[in-house]
Amino acid sequence: MEPPKTVQQIADFLRRLPSVGTKSSLRLAYACLALPREDLEAFCSALERALTTIHTCPECGLLIDGDSCPICSDSTRDGSTLMVVTSAKDVLAIENSDSFRGRYFVLSGTLSPAAHRTLESTGINRLLAKVQAGGIREVICCTGADLEGETTALYIASALKETGVEVTRPAEGLPSGAVLEYADPVTLGRAIKGRTKIEEE
Amino acid sequence: MEPPKTVQQIADFLRRLPSVGTKSSLRLAYACLALPREDLEAFCSALERALTTIHTCPECGLLIDGDSCPICSDSTRDGSTLMVVTSAKDVLAIENSDSFRGRYFVLSGTLSPAAHRTLESTGINRLLAKVQAGGIREVICCTGADLEGETTALYIASALKETGVEVTRPAEGLPSGAVLEYADPVTLGRAIKGRTKIEEE
Repeated sequence: MEPPKTVQQIADFLRRLPSVGTKSSLRLAYACLALPREDLEAFCSALERALTTIHTCPECGLLIDGDSCPICSDSTRDGSTLMVVTSAKDVLAIENSDSFRGRYFVLSGTLSPAAHRTLESTGINRLLAKVQAGGIREVICCTGADLEGETTALYIASALKETGVEVTRPAEGLPSGAVLEYADPVTLGRAIKGRTKIEEE
Repeated sequence: MEPPKTVQQIADFLRRLPSVGTKSSLRLAYACLALPREDLEAFCSALERALTTIHTCPECGLLIDGDSCPICSDSTRDGSTLMVVTSAKDVLAIENSDSFRGRYFVLSGTLSPAAHRTLESTGINRLLAKVQAGGIREVICCTGADLEGETTALYIASALKETGVEVTRPAEGLPSGAVLEYADPVTLGRAIKGRTKIEEE
């Protein structure tokens, strides 16, 4: 027996989201339909509003719903430091850490020939052109510590070598509060290699 | 920094679905918006279609999108055996096991005073009235093997005691293909207590 066609269509869409499989997509679709009707209507109209109002800032690639980007329009931010991330939601995480006051450049994912993510489609070509146009002192590649993220960062660093712009990446090491015995050897090795001096406050 | 308001509204809705937390709801909302625009439009219209076409069968409570319920309108099914489940998607699972040719009664969840699920709101009162009206020989309580599911089954059994209708529940035991040493003691105990004779074919 098949679920009703509409339920299946909803499940098919949900299955395309990260970490949603065939079984859980159907479970989520049924759960959607079990919620109060007015909530489902509100969700529909939020999605439709998103289709018309949400767009990416042409300058930095952040998802915004107004006319001006809250980051690019903020003149107190340092325009000479550019943080490169691979997803708009990474900007939220970095902003919530209160540790950066420069500007952003959001790529569409990491470089991955296997997944057809190229220099053009990820936006790396646009990033390089922007940096080469001048006015930027440092590019921080916050593209992730996995293989694809590191490859992307290495590519950007090598492409910008001639420009004299400093290309950095966030420190790797033990996460705050980590228990040493559970740290994986790569993380532990990098944490030790990158050890810092203990400063007395 | 907050995500755009529309993104937050989408995330707020998704967070109400099972096993979606605060972080993953935002992740799913961003993933939704990263999908091709036409897919998002198709999803919106599937949801809106669901709002107008999907309804519960007044007889059995199954979610259907046509005029007639595929189960209730099937005259080859045995109307004297009623399978009680607590969610419409359980019907799909049972139908796909090809082991039941009776009819269903879908409750709105298990009985749970703590979650404000009462005899009235779960539909148990309607179930009891239906059975008491006659024509039903057996009620199979497939309401789940957890505490709330068993309480619901016990309640139904005790409420129908006087009617002479047989109230049963699916066998409990080792799942097919289970490795004995990983079975929990309760399951193993019930599997041994409910052991069946090996029949030569």
